Amino acid sequence: MQIILLIFDKKIEMNIEEQIKKSETRQVKVVFKNLINDHNTLFGGIALQWMDEVAYITATRFCRKKVVTTSTGKINFKNSIPYGTIVEIIGKVAKVGAVKLEINVQIFTEEKYSSLREKAVEGNFYFAAVDDNNQPIKLLD
Amino acid sequence: MQIILLIFDKKIEMNIEEQIKKSETRQVKVVFKNLINDHNTLFGGIALQWMDEVAYITATRFCRKKVVTTSTGKINFKNSIPYGTIVEIIGKVAKVGAVKLEINVQIFTEEKYSSLREKAVEGNFYFAAVDDNNQPIKLLD
Amino acid sequence: MQIILLIFDKKIEMNIEEQIKKSETRQVKVVFKNLINDHNTLFGGIALQWMDEVAYITATRFCRKKVVTTSTGKINFKNSIPYGTIVEIIGKVAKVGAVKLEINVQIFTEEKYSSLREKAVEGNFYFAAVDDNNQPIKLLD
Amino acid sequence: MQIILLIFDKKIEMNIEEQIKKSETRQVKVVFKNLINDHNTLFGGIALQWMDEVAYITATRFCRKKVVTTSTGKINFKNSIPYGTIVEIIGKVAKVGAVKLEINVQIFTEEKYSSLREKAVEGNFYFAAVDDNNQPIKLLD
Amino acid sequence: MQIILLIFDKKIEMNIEEQIKKSETRQVKVVFKNLINDHNTLFGGIALQWMDEVAYITATRFCRKKVVTTSTGKINFKNSIPYGTIVEIIGKVAKVGAVKLEINVQIFTEEKYSSLREKAVEGNFYFAAVDDNNQPIKLLD
Amino acid sequence: MQIILLIFDKKIEMNIEEQIKKSETRQVKVVFKNLINDHNTLFGGIALQWMDEVAYITATRFCRKKVVTTSTGKINFKNSIPYGTIVEIIGKVAKVGAVKLEINVQIFTEEKYSSLREKAVEGNFYFAAVDDNNQPIKLLD
Repeated sequence: MQIILLIFDKKIEMNIEEQIKKSETRQVKVVFKNLINDHNTLFGGIALQWMDEVAYITATRFCRKKVVTTSTGKINFKNSIPYGTIVEIIGKVAKVGAVKLEINVQIFTEEKYSSLREKAVEGNFYFAAVDDNNQPIKLLD
Repeated sequence: MQIILLIFDKKIEMNIEEQIKKSETRQVKVVFKNLINDHNTLFGGIALQWMDEVAYITATRFCRKKVVTTSTGKINFKNSIPYGTIVEIIGKVAKVGAVKLEINVQIFTEEKYSSLREKAVEGNFYFAAVDDNNQPIKLLD
Repeated sequence: MQIILLIFDKKIEMNIEEQIKKSETRQVKVVFKNLINDHNTLFGGIALQWMDEVAYITATRFCRKKVVTTSTGKINFKNSIPYGTIVEIIGKVAKVGAVKLEINVQIFTEEKYSSLREKAVEGNFYFAAVDDNNQPIKLLD
Repeated sequence: MQIILLIFDKKIEMNIEEQIKKSETRQVKVVFKNLINDHNTLFGGIALQWMDEVAYITATRFCRKKVVTTSTGKINFKNSIPYGTIVEIIGKVAKVGAVKLEINVQIFTEEKYSSLREKAVEGNFYFAAVDDNNQPIKLLD
Repeated sequence: MQIILLIFDKKIEMNIEEQIKKSETRQVKVVFKNLINDHNTLFGGIALQWMDEVAYITATRFCRKKVVTTSTGKINFKNSIPYGTIVEIIGKVAKVGAVKLEINVQIFTEEKYSSLREKAVEGNFYFAAVDDNNQPIKLLD
Repeated sequence: MQIILLIFDKKIEMNIEEQIKKSETRQVKVVFKNLINDHNTLFGGIALQWMDEVAYITATRFCRKKVVTTSTGKINFKNSIPYGTIVEIIGKVAKVGAVKLEINVQIFTEEKYSSLREKAVEGNFYFAAVDDNNQPIKLLD
């Protein structure tokens, strides 16, 4: 978080570290039949929808302003997610710029009848804070 | 957790305490337009659906067996949940019987542009562990 | 219905009996694949959502005022509901208080290729009538 | 029902009349925000989906065999269905042929805060009974 | 399109031909598990919903006015649509009246692992152009 | 498409060009209320879900084999997509490797009551062809 060290004094930085911690967002779900593709694994599009919702909440919780998704980075589907598994989607603030917020989102799968857990999908989502006319504003006051 | 103290020795109990901690389940969501009733607040039925899913995951994570909902207790809708708020649904193991598992589920609302947070809905869900023929089995081996 | 006998004269009571009869609400559905959990039975959360919608309509039809769910009583899942069966959700006014309305909701399952029918789920839902500021008002004028 | 009189003896006919009465199917719903088009009225496609589900259940309840929709007749949208109204979809057997079943489906709207009720949509759906290889079979044995 | 020839001069007609060509609308989808009935084929009601949405877009693109579905003609389900196939829904303007627009909609199925393609469903949908008070207006100025 | 020139002879290449043309996939939709976020614009996650479905169909149509999403590239949300607009999602094969297929997906918005059309979202999706055990296989035989 060097960037932050450079642009903010100690006190604000500590608030930011605390905001980052507080804004972490988790969503645990089960892969039911209405969510799977015709290979009996989670439809990739649903995974992306979940990731965007979690990223959006994380970003909103961090700056408490109206935010919009401006782009995503590369999103890797490391492992397919089988029907019936438990998944946890976790969103964390990865980098705080003046007007651009980077949120890292990971999806972990968890076997229902063991506690085996592994990362299945990972990617970054980028947000801007906007005013009521959707014009970009500063992330932090 | 007196019941547990009576029926299990120290070592098992500690595992249980740990299992209870590990099985806590959280789901954070935003109340979008496809989830609201015609009073512009979260449709109660959706809240119940979320609570049941979170309770089901919590119960599964606790005993790592096939579980089924057998009943709910009284569920209180303390506050209505307005359109656009962030909600967090939290499931925790409340009581462990020989064949019956009590899961407490709470829904908290969080204003998007402040960090005000209050409890909106709370209730208990009861689960039994079953074998492949849906016959009840012991929760813990 | 003693309560009613005490608080209303004969004529109003008869209207109420008629209103109760008129407000009975039925919803027949088929359990399709987008509604089932990973045990191939109806996801309990969907059953609760259906029950709340039917209860809400029954309550609205009874008092023709804006109503909100205030709580549920114990809800029993007597039998699981297999994929592919027909279900009928029935809502009836069970008790009329001054400001609190009790709606009983039952779910019956019906085999598609026989006429076997049995009760699967039952519970009560409680409603209050509210004004436009969501302040409680009398159920009946 | 002349057709029936010609092809069945008195006793069977009475069973049919009874089957027709028993197979009548009702579904009451509220038009929530996830069901409306961009004119704030019920999306016509959702109305058609509800009608087909109700018709399918009515047909299944009548002959207790696997049935498939073969066609619809003209479907009239007499009145648009505003957001927030209660709707009741009613399916009834209209005609029983040797291999073709005609189901009449009507949608009525009901104002939430009055008991005004009027027909909004009406149409017929046609079904055939089929065996496991989807080959047409007799409706009645 | 004789009707058109009679009621419009050459120049307008050409615009219409061009508008008809431009307004053709295509929607390609895959039949996932959340869309199938309990015979493992596409739920007829979903097919009707898709057809209505495509017809609505085609009609809107043609006259660029607020349109409402007034009725459908006979809709034929020639072949059932198996789970996992690709389907293409195609909407085309079939006839242009003074106040009534006829849209023809076809659903084609396409095998995923061959290029076999055949028509599965076909029907016509009728639309009227309306003003903000839902009063019928001319389709073309 | 130099890569292709290097690895395939003229005849195959022409088939590929034809396959690419044939596999182009279009999905036209209207942004209804069940699809929007709490800023009254299309929920970004829904846009990603649509793009993945269109990319998946394009990839399947191109190689007629079982394909899985392996990753996405950067996805740009150039313009937000307002409630009520028509959108067209277009998928095209962008690059054909030995085992990796790049699909470009664009979303265009179209005003309902004019023909104004502009690009709103764009990104690339990457697919691999796999056998029944989800082991990677050649895209083309």
